[in-house]
Amino acid sequence: MSDASYTLYDSRLSGNAWKVRLLLSHLGLPFRRVTFNLPEGKTRTPEFRAKNPVGKVPVLELSDGTALFESNAILAYLARGTRYLPDEPVAQATVLQWMFFEQSEALKNLAPARFHVSISKRAKEMAADVAKWHEGGYKALDIIDARLQASPFLAGDRYTIADISNFPYVSMAHEGAFDMTKYPHIAAWLDRVRSQPGYVPLIQD
Amino acid sequence: MSDASYTLYDSRLSGNAWKVRLLLSHLGLPFRRVTFNLPEGKTRTPEFRAKNPVGKVPVLELSDGTALFESNAILAYLARGTRYLPDEPVAQATVLQWMFFEQSEALKNLAPARFHVSISKRAKEMAADVAKWHEGGYKALDIIDARLQASPFLAGDRYTIADISNFPYVSMAHEGAFDMTKYPHIAAWLDRVRSQPGYVPLIQD
Repeated sequence: MSDASYTLYDSRLSGNAWKVRLLLSHLGLPFRRVTFNLPEGKTRTPEFRAKNPVGKVPVLELSDGTALFESNAILAYLARGTRYLPDEPVAQATVLQWMFFEQSEALKNLAPARFHVSISKRAKEMAADVAKWHEGGYKALDIIDARLQASPFLAGDRYTIADISNFPYVSMAHEGAFDMTKYPHIAAWLDRVRSQPGYVPLIQD
Repeated sequence: MSDASYTLYDSRLSGNAWKVRLLLSHLGLPFRRVTFNLPEGKTRTPEFRAKNPVGKVPVLELSDGTALFESNAILAYLARGTRYLPDEPVAQATVLQWMFFEQSEALKNLAPARFHVSISKRAKEMAADVAKWHEGGYKALDIIDARLQASPFLAGDRYTIADISNFPYVSMAHEGAFDMTKYPHIAAWLDRVRSQPGYVPLIQD
């Protein structure tokens, strides 16, 4: 593979884009990085919407110009044939199951709570919304903690893209005013993820 | 494969469970069906949570007792190696992309609007929530309609699990008081899906 076959469109604070940078780093794949300052609205231009009609980062552009969106689909694409996505059917389905769980139960509560508590700082005026995100988010965190009591990683004994998918917003949940002190199994898992070869923090520049 | 290698735990009105019944029918796979009446709370028992900690249908149980949850992960499991999930890497990533889109953009708005407008019938007291679901839901429907103007199916020229994933809640969006008359490309696609061999309606019994 030639240098920088991939272009990653991201932003400095996006947890979804962080997932992709984690996996690219684990795999040692070079990539060109185009980092948007989201308030400038550059993900909402017609040019960018031709890459992702949703108008969000991350987008992974391949060397032939194909643009892939949805962070978890990008993870599955990059992980194919690697140790991060098992090929055995039930094992692979279990990885995907925890990635869809991340979208359906975890991220939709953890991400907006973090955004409005720590980034837009509108938690007071949005108190009713924050309460709903906390209600749903704690249910998701309870499930994740119980799962990580039973196995070291979400899909079993090995670190996979199921962990990479769930890690960013769980690791930043405290920024959404979630009390994480009651989740010892999540705390130990966060340490296991951070000790993986090639781990990179959210902000690298 | 022996008769009824699979047990599907579902409910009569679940769009997520409908996805799985659509694919099982397309593939001609026999299955045992366990249909819960959700208000009875049987998905929230410890016994059922051992199958799916989230406490929701659908769950697909394999002949060895393995339980898979998250409807889209179940679709990917069943579709592997079939015409409904291409194996070529970019084509497969495109299918997964539209399945994650279904979770991240479409279902989270379409499903609760349908539930509270047509099933719980609490739309009036939840007017502020309904307005938010409509705002997000119309954005998702705009994107789907534009995509289906460009290609007959979500992932391109062929009917795949990307379509099966998005079909139930888009086809029932009008039950959530979405005005679907402005989406001609979605209307044509709904007809294409309904004409697929093995198509089954939501309620079969």
